[in-house]
Amino acid sequence: MGSIGIVSPQAMHFAEPLRLRSGAALGDYTLMYETYGTLNADKSNAVLICHALNASHHVAGHYADQPKSAGWWDNMVGPGKPVDTDRFFVIGVNNLGSCFGSTGPMHTNPATGKPYGAAFPVVTVEDWVAAQALLADRLGIERFAAVMGGSLGGMQALAWSIMFPERLRHCIVIASTPKLSAQNIAFNDVARQAILTDPDYRRGDFYEHGVVPKNGLKVARMVGHITYLSNDDMAEKFGRKLRNAAENNEYKFDFGIDFEIESYLRYQGDKFSEYFDANTYLLITKALDYFDPAREHGGNLAKALENTRAQYLVASFSTDWRFSPERSREIVEALLANRRKVTYAEIDAPHGHDAFLLEDARYMNIVRAYFERIAGEQKEAA
Amino acid sequence: MGSIGIVSPQAMHFAEPLRLRSGAALGDYTLMYETYGTLNADKSNAVLICHALNASHHVAGHYADQPKSAGWWDNMVGPGKPVDTDRFFVIGVNNLGSCFGSTGPMHTNPATGKPYGAAFPVVTVEDWVAAQALLADRLGIERFAAVMGGSLGGMQALAWSIMFPERLRHCIVIASTPKLSAQNIAFNDVARQAILTDPDYRRGDFYEHGVVPKNGLKVARMVGHITYLSNDDMAEKFGRKLRNAAENNEYKFDFGIDFEIESYLRYQGDKFSEYFDANTYLLITKALDYFDPAREHGGNLAKALENTRAQYLVASFSTDWRFSPERSREIVEALLANRRKVTYAEIDAPHGHDAFLLEDARYMNIVRAYFERIAGEQKEAA
Repeated sequence: MGSIGIVSPQAMHFAEPLRLRSGAALGDYTLMYETYGTLNADKSNAVLICHALNASHHVAGHYADQPKSAGWWDNMVGPGKPVDTDRFFVIGVNNLGSCFGSTGPMHTNPATGKPYGAAFPVVTVEDWVAAQALLADRLGIERFAAVMGGSLGGMQALAWSIMFPERLRHCIVIASTPKLSAQNIAFNDVARQAILTDPDYRRGDFYEHGVVPKNGLKVARMVGHITYLSNDDMAEKFGRKLRNAAENNEYKFDFGIDFEIESYLRYQGDKFSEYFDANTYLLITKALDYFDPAREHGGNLAKALENTRAQYLVASFSTDWRFSPERSREIVEALLANRRKVTYAEIDAPHGHDAFLLEDARYMNIVRAYFERIAGEQKEAA
Repeated sequence: MGSIGIVSPQAMHFAEPLRLRSGAALGDYTLMYETYGTLNADKSNAVLICHALNASHHVAGHYADQPKSAGWWDNMVGPGKPVDTDRFFVIGVNNLGSCFGSTGPMHTNPATGKPYGAAFPVVTVEDWVAAQALLADRLGIERFAAVMGGSLGGMQALAWSIMFPERLRHCIVIASTPKLSAQNIAFNDVARQAILTDPDYRRGDFYEHGVVPKNGLKVARMVGHITYLSNDDMAEKFGRKLRNAAENNEYKFDFGIDFEIESYLRYQGDKFSEYFDANTYLLITKALDYFDPAREHGGNLAKALENTRAQYLVASFSTDWRFSPERSREIVEALLANRRKVTYAEIDAPHGHDAFLLEDARYMNIVRAYFERIAGEQKEAA
């Protein structure tokens, strides 16, 4: 089991306008992507990995001369890893509206010659999937062995199986949900309000003013981060430990930092606000809020999944309170109502929603076994 | 069962400095309070009600000519109500640092002649209790029949039983906790960051600048509000309903309001930011974070409660995820370890943390029965 080694991103330019769910269109755009492993002769071993909120096309491997640049799912994807790049040709794509290379709000709006800013259209999970499908066309991939993602990435995998039922054999949906709850939306809206009311947001056109709504982004990230961690995990890691416990185990009686958890969250918030884009954050929370494939079927998820053809692996984590196992079971039940083949794993793991990104033997073994099955099927077919 | 009718607040001035846990002192201060019912001859029927985050001394009744000014626990306190003002003399006190009349950051700092602002000292639950005890002295109440509170108010009741074991016969702790969890502190710190980074906060001295950090307060309230409601209750009341569902059941594809839950939370946040004080919000979240009576006993809550003398009613609500029933059971177990008399009620109610303020027959009946028992004891003693 080795590392994937040095990787480089690639860019694919699309001149054809992309019609969006909102009715708007992106007239001209670029998708950044990376690939790992080798596409086989009959192009049947491609796996698409869809990313979640703050990730990108950089799924695995390292960039040259940047030893700390491991991809966000480097523990999952690589030679001999659960998604084995000795067997599979893996593709990571950066979604539209992101701040990691694909066309986003910080890029030049050809209509104005200025950065898009607030003019960047609101994009949906379905828009991302449509763009990913166009990239697959260009790469000559008619049908994926699997489309896979966690959290918001799982929504994209699910949407693939609905929008392009013939184009994937397996759909892998991890720590996800068929739609956000009112509580999920509420947390997203707190994050949005924090950004929108930051005076440096400048109605989305902060690029031109040479400022960044860092305070708003920081608060947005802090509240999001709380929902990624489990209550128990937070209690164990931080509890009520004081930051200065070693030297002086006293409260400070001001509004600075007393507790380790405050220090941790503020640090995470600060770090995030230095590299993430505020408009991207807004766009991604909206894509999350809007995802609801059952919506155009009167709320009937089974109906929404009626035309799917894929086989599914659905996995959830016991302490995930953002997208709890119950939400995954809704997907499983709707698939079973359609007599789809579904493997469901509810993994007892302490790390809340973040578990989908972390090393966990049971979790990794389940994904590994599932991909061995996929590889076995390919051999049979060959 | 009638209303308590028209009530008026009273002010008690204290010229003696109040020494605070932080080491600082408040040199001169006023406490606002209200009383309902009549103190009996032997002064044995007094009940102190401690308030939570955004409440005040105005526990019950209405102000003259303000029909919408019902006290925050008007369903609980009044003639024939669970805390029956025909039998008990009930006192509500506004805590120091509040924005509802007792000395707080918006009042003049005698040392500077300007509003305290950031110079207002950080106060603790124990400081509030100490001040309440001085008010009780002035009112000639040596021993309360009961000290009672919900949430942060419950912390005060618990602190009373520790700090002044001889001064209360019963201690009623509802929807509370012996200390905040890392997650509780994390949410408070998000709220604080939202306020502290609002440019209109002006390092706490916004009064002089004629501004108010409304955006920060709004975000702070929104995130707090989410933790007061249960996930299920939010799902039932709001779910994914669109605000414009009746006229046009479509997403808006902008960062305005799509969902009812957004509309509700933003409205609550706006309303709150118009009447609440940002410094008070900071102070109260710190008082919450700091409360931890077990702290000076090596984390041993039973040890912290060793010298208590009161009898206890502890109540929690099944869907309260802010201060879950588990946290109340910690209190109960520590009391039982000291062989204290404890009645514990875990009430199956859908409304999350807010349930302690709401009408619920089982809840009201438990409190009513408990106060009938208190009244019965008084007769016996008489």
